[in-house]
Amino acid sequence: MTEVTTASADLPTSVRFFQLRRKTGVNHATCRSSRSRPVAGNRLLANALGRLPPPELLLTEIPIKDLPLYSPDFDADYPPVARALKQAIADVDAVLFVTPEYNRSIPGGLKNAIDWASRPWGKNSFARKPTGVIGTSPGAIGTAVAQQSLRGVLCYCNSPLMNQVEAYIQFKPGLITADGEVTDDATQEFLRNYMTEMHAFIVRVLTVLPRNA
Amino acid sequence: MTEVTTASADLPTSVRFFQLRRKTGVNHATCRSSRSRPVAGNRLLANALGRLPPPELLLTEIPIKDLPLYSPDFDADYPPVARALKQAIADVDAVLFVTPEYNRSIPGGLKNAIDWASRPWGKNSFARKPTGVIGTSPGAIGTAVAQQSLRGVLCYCNSPLMNQVEAYIQFKPGLITADGEVTDDATQEFLRNYMTEMHAFIVRVLTVLPRNA
Amino acid sequence: MTEVTTASADLPTSVRFFQLRRKTGVNHATCRSSRSRPVAGNRLLANALGRLPPPELLLTEIPIKDLPLYSPDFDADYPPVARALKQAIADVDAVLFVTPEYNRSIPGGLKNAIDWASRPWGKNSFARKPTGVIGTSPGAIGTAVAQQSLRGVLCYCNSPLMNQVEAYIQFKPGLITADGEVTDDATQEFLRNYMTEMHAFIVRVLTVLPRNA
Amino acid sequence: MTEVTTASADLPTSVRFFQLRRKTGVNHATCRSSRSRPVAGNRLLANALGRLPPPELLLTEIPIKDLPLYSPDFDADYPPVARALKQAIADVDAVLFVTPEYNRSIPGGLKNAIDWASRPWGKNSFARKPTGVIGTSPGAIGTAVAQQSLRGVLCYCNSPLMNQVEAYIQFKPGLITADGEVTDDATQEFLRNYMTEMHAFIVRVLTVLPRNA
Repeated sequence: MTEVTTASADLPTSVRFFQLRRKTGVNHATCRSSRSRPVAGNRLLANALGRLPPPELLLTEIPIKDLPLYSPDFDADYPPVARALKQAIADVDAVLFVTPEYNRSIPGGLKNAIDWASRPWGKNSFARKPTGVIGTSPGAIGTAVAQQSLRGVLCYCNSPLMNQVEAYIQFKPGLITADGEVTDDATQEFLRNYMTEMHAFIVRVLTVLPRNA
Repeated sequence: MTEVTTASADLPTSVRFFQLRRKTGVNHATCRSSRSRPVAGNRLLANALGRLPPPELLLTEIPIKDLPLYSPDFDADYPPVARALKQAIADVDAVLFVTPEYNRSIPGGLKNAIDWASRPWGKNSFARKPTGVIGTSPGAIGTAVAQQSLRGVLCYCNSPLMNQVEAYIQFKPGLITADGEVTDDATQEFLRNYMTEMHAFIVRVLTVLPRNA
Repeated sequence: MTEVTTASADLPTSVRFFQLRRKTGVNHATCRSSRSRPVAGNRLLANALGRLPPPELLLTEIPIKDLPLYSPDFDADYPPVARALKQAIADVDAVLFVTPEYNRSIPGGLKNAIDWASRPWGKNSFARKPTGVIGTSPGAIGTAVAQQSLRGVLCYCNSPLMNQVEAYIQFKPGLITADGEVTDDATQEFLRNYMTEMHAFIVRVLTVLPRNA
Repeated sequence: MTEVTTASADLPTSVRFFQLRRKTGVNHATCRSSRSRPVAGNRLLANALGRLPPPELLLTEIPIKDLPLYSPDFDADYPPVARALKQAIADVDAVLFVTPEYNRSIPGGLKNAIDWASRPWGKNSFARKPTGVIGTSPGAIGTAVAQQSLRGVLCYCNSPLMNQVEAYIQFKPGLITADGEVTDDATQEFLRNYMTEMHAFIVRVLTVLPRNA
């Protein structure tokens, strides 16, 4: 179940990093937020995606906010939180990045998580792991430039990347409720289609690149 | 939150972030390392640059490794370490980025520092602050792709960016000693010229864009 | 070779390349179109910008559609059309790129013109020439990704680039008339401000980097 | 110089665009040059790759230098040279881009060819067509930044892209003879491995994405 957010209402990061578990017939509990502060758009988008996927997809969050800043000095001995990150990625079939755009690029916190996951040399967690990218921002470009940077990084990390459909979501107040309900029909249909395409993409990749082969 | 780092003075991050102070007749003390571990190439490069600039340039490091992961949740109340970062940038005439390349992009830790410095909205520390970019890596491309990403970010941050000379330094063992001495004459001359150009660029920008105007 | 185009005034390319001439009290004649075909959005945007600038700015188009495909084989002897391009850039104070986005990058025709202008080695037409970037597309991201690529290229060409204001214009039918009148007040105000900022930027750059110094 | 293809020896472009045909037991005739002028590095690299692939791979060039500059005005009626381009891509199993870097980005002539191939809407020639990217330049970065841009474009064009191995070849005089013989053993071994990986990648993609399915 998605468990997109957490009980720790005071420690959100707006950067998120999702895993997709292929699993049949599981439906996913809505994450409710009791925070009084406004919830970030990408958090809401993640909630919405958690409700929409085909039943074969189960979204669960891979937390990244407690990672220290990566340095090669850690390569010889990863701290537990970084090992947990790599294990979490290893345990799932695919990773979906739900991300804001900071300064027309990948948020530092998300890039930091990717740096951890890609190392140490020879143990890149993204090799042959299917990924997708989606994001929302208040501006009209909807994280388009950050996503372009992220795709370049994921290409380098040798991840099979779902290139189409692209998803640049302009976030307007009320577009998605705290429960993850999309209030605009066209957006909901778009996101539903996105998840369907994501699922088809994962199946295609894993058919030809079985993880345990 | 994140508690990125530690008390351990010998646990460096290889991401660095330098400030340039225009100051006449000051020479910059060499950073000596007593560490037994190999020192990262970009640390050595920074040491070398600190010895080479014209006397008008004083290089001092702006530390970034103790910053937590940025989130907009902090915008209303920056923690002291992030305020110190912004103050350090405000106090200098220019910023020189000496950076490795992680996954063909900006290291997460460096992007995180930039995200902190660029916020909160309306208090972007890079506006009209001259910047330069340089880096070294063991591979032949010498951080070229990361630098391209970094330039895009700095453009967005409205920083006047020294576009030429570019500096993509391939790091080979022994190229720079721990004291920052460059053992290869051509590289030394190249770096000396880089700093001279950087100085001229800073003067040009500050002539037309005085910081207190 | 390429013979991109023809005498036929109604065979436009949607790629354009504008020059800005600082000139007081000159207003720019509107380009009127008698074509029955729909006129491309960026053509209309250029028309609109030609009407909006402060009187000190005169916009004139630098044609690029008749250029052959650049190759270094031409470096020793540029064809007249390419010499004319370089002369046109030399004759103006600044260049404004009004461009669509093709495949999330710079249109090939525009990149080709930039390649011509930047060569031969040592005769880069963009060195210290102020530039700006603007564009429109039917999609919401309004050429944002193409502009990011273009900025990287212009940085390399050592052009002082107006980084802020960014202008990503979503083109909707009727937004701009064939005469270049902007029908939406907010967009008109935005574009007017863009040209005012562009003018201020040019003045700043040319104050510190006089072309004949 | 480059003698890219064809009889029109006087209108070469140094940008090239190769097709790979999976075909057993066919070896590819070496392109011999009797020209006295130096042959461009990427031409020589292409010659070398044509000698190296596993026998299942046949490299043939897709000419691009006679294409006019693309404009959407052509969408309703492509000229024959552009139809030939699209047919040539349709006829092969994969496309390998052997490209120089112009202004830290894709050469305009190559981007122009990609723009033609990707249109008109709904008839994108790169959809599900495996591609690879390789290039050489006299500088040490060996087209790394151009390749990053090209990858972003190919991602958008929905082409399955071989992300690893990367190939950034610094071209030094004599590295490759006019006959396509690689004089440096390490480079030859690297290129041989590149083609082997390319072949394996094509087989993987076409197994899961058969072109006629």
